[in-house]
Amino acid sequence: MAEPATATQAAAPVVALLKDELDIVIPTIRNLDFLEMWRPFFQPYHLIIVQDGDPSKTIKVPEGFDYELYNRNDINRILGPKASCISFKDSACRCFGYMVSKKKYIFTIDDDCFVAKDPSGKAINALEQHIKNLLSPSTPFFYNTLYDPFREGADFVRGYPFSLREGVPTAASHGLWLNIPDYDAPTQLVKPLERNTRYVDAVLTIPKGTLFPMCGMNLAFNRELIGPAMYFGLMGDGQPIGRYDDMWAGWCTKVICDHLGLGVKTGLPYIFHSKASNPFVNLRKEYKGIYWQEEIIPFFQQAVLPKDCTTVQKCYIELAKQVKEKLSKVDPYFDKLADAMVTWIEAWDELNPTGPVPNGKAA
Amino acid sequence: MAEPATATQAAAPVVALLKDELDIVIPTIRNLDFLEMWRPFFQPYHLIIVQDGDPSKTIKVPEGFDYELYNRNDINRILGPKASCISFKDSACRCFGYMVSKKKYIFTIDDDCFVAKDPSGKAINALEQHIKNLLSPSTPFFYNTLYDPFREGADFVRGYPFSLREGVPTAASHGLWLNIPDYDAPTQLVKPLERNTRYVDAVLTIPKGTLFPMCGMNLAFNRELIGPAMYFGLMGDGQPIGRYDDMWAGWCTKVICDHLGLGVKTGLPYIFHSKASNPFVNLRKEYKGIYWQEEIIPFFQQAVLPKDCTTVQKCYIELAKQVKEKLSKVDPYFDKLADAMVTWIEAWDELNPTGPVPNGKAA
Repeated sequence: MAEPATATQAAAPVVALLKDELDIVIPTIRNLDFLEMWRPFFQPYHLIIVQDGDPSKTIKVPEGFDYELYNRNDINRILGPKASCISFKDSACRCFGYMVSKKKYIFTIDDDCFVAKDPSGKAINALEQHIKNLLSPSTPFFYNTLYDPFREGADFVRGYPFSLREGVPTAASHGLWLNIPDYDAPTQLVKPLERNTRYVDAVLTIPKGTLFPMCGMNLAFNRELIGPAMYFGLMGDGQPIGRYDDMWAGWCTKVICDHLGLGVKTGLPYIFHSKASNPFVNLRKEYKGIYWQEEIIPFFQQAVLPKDCTTVQKCYIELAKQVKEKLSKVDPYFDKLADAMVTWIEAWDELNPTGPVPNGKAA
Repeated sequence: MAEPATATQAAAPVVALLKDELDIVIPTIRNLDFLEMWRPFFQPYHLIIVQDGDPSKTIKVPEGFDYELYNRNDINRILGPKASCISFKDSACRCFGYMVSKKKYIFTIDDDCFVAKDPSGKAINALEQHIKNLLSPSTPFFYNTLYDPFREGADFVRGYPFSLREGVPTAASHGLWLNIPDYDAPTQLVKPLERNTRYVDAVLTIPKGTLFPMCGMNLAFNRELIGPAMYFGLMGDGQPIGRYDDMWAGWCTKVICDHLGLGVKTGLPYIFHSKASNPFVNLRKEYKGIYWQEEIIPFFQQAVLPKDCTTVQKCYIELAKQVKEKLSKVDPYFDKLADAMVTWIEAWDELNPTGPVPNGKAA
């Protein structure tokens, strides 16, 4: 597991599940050579590439992929003044891709992520595992000690209430990383050589009422169920903070999933994370977040949404209100962020007028 | 993993951690030949054998083990009228062993559990892994996506609040089972051939506020921190229910751990569970529990302990009161069980007069 899979290992024939119902969203500033490795798994799908940074630069995409690409000029043109809610010079810009997608499912991956191998040496089709996670129910109300009861060879154990065995719809699937673990700057600095070599063959539902650090590197979700909550906030250019985009989305998503009775899974699939970002740069981006999260997390742990919040949009607007009320005292940034959360929902609804999916079936 | 380890595989030299601070509690009705396989791992420790059923029968223990053995006559003699709280003709009788132990830690295992092998074929020293779990902190307030951050090669991931990284003391370690999974009778009947072959290389903290089905087959705990909550209830002879002894202890333990800020871990170590019990017999024992748990679990999910419950004993007496108030309407059995819970604490305090440990250091 110290190396990613080779192209040959990844080249086994693949059944492309949900191929017309899923978009792959990739934020990038560079040529997408990393797609070569993913070709057998990704080529049947449509890609949405969100180009960050200089819009005059040309991003090369390997031949044979079906994609649309948006740079900053496109985002400004499509959203007008509402483009202010989309971050610039930060991978948080990826959430623009979620908004313009017309599909039911999204898979998002970073361009430094390669195909990992399972302990038998087989290339892992991360997307396929995410789809399995999303298509099987979650079990947030009671913990199953043999992990996901819907996986082959597993079930609910003795003592699991039968009334809860139907589970709830799964809104999000959070995958993990072999090789470079997703550590914060202080941990990177302290443990520069630590690599994740432990392949844990498990998927599990994060219990109701429990928050988790959601990483955006290897993530899939059901846009119809939870899309409008997947806002990656204001990061990067002109903002006092970075590297908390996915965390913000994760806290909001989990609180809303808990309120609406939806599930979030974590565990498989693994990707091979190739290179650690610079810990000194990361420290500069993160240090306010490291401090702020000590207040933000209790805020989200205690957040209660009223009963009349029956859609993701209503939940999200309510959360924005509570952010403004309770987190603005931490820093004026949160006042701005709360406004951007509202703008995000307005932009989402503008681009998705009949509901989250174009066939008129509302979430 | 379809077979247990052989004696040779298990015979590597072993460092016996906490050898003078841990008792191994085994409930049984038969000769303890299964100990042969565990000899390299268990022989340095003291065993407490609780003989269930006919007290006139002689249980043979393989030579070389240091043990004390209690049969029903012993239990009656030691506890007098309070012996009524200890079940008869049910493995729930094991909790008598927890009460008479004078050690800080308990490991309890069933006599149909053998040494499992890890994926490399190495015999798993289950006890050693339990001790590692118990000696490292738990993280119940926020989920760490790379599982137990205190294992070698792991840590807290980006976005994990630094204020929570110290963790809390671990009160219990719940191990799992390869081969025969711990299924209820209906699942056994429906899937008679299902075997657990998935070795999940993970330990994790069950989050605060989340209940789980605790199995007593392969379980360790810190007696000093949580011992008095590990009451296995009234099961078997003269009772309307069986096979819910460990579940009952698990619900009570988890609610009290959550209240007192203690952790419960689950995952590694695996044991090899050799034979499935008879599903028809199990169904007869379980069917009331299957029905009742639909009300019992919401009761425990909603149970709140007042702030002045600062010891396990106080918490447990308060829980007994709430059981009487709220579950007696489900069945008169719970009235009797609530009384037995109080008797259990009285007996515990009688046998452990200066606090949970004999050296006068109170929990």
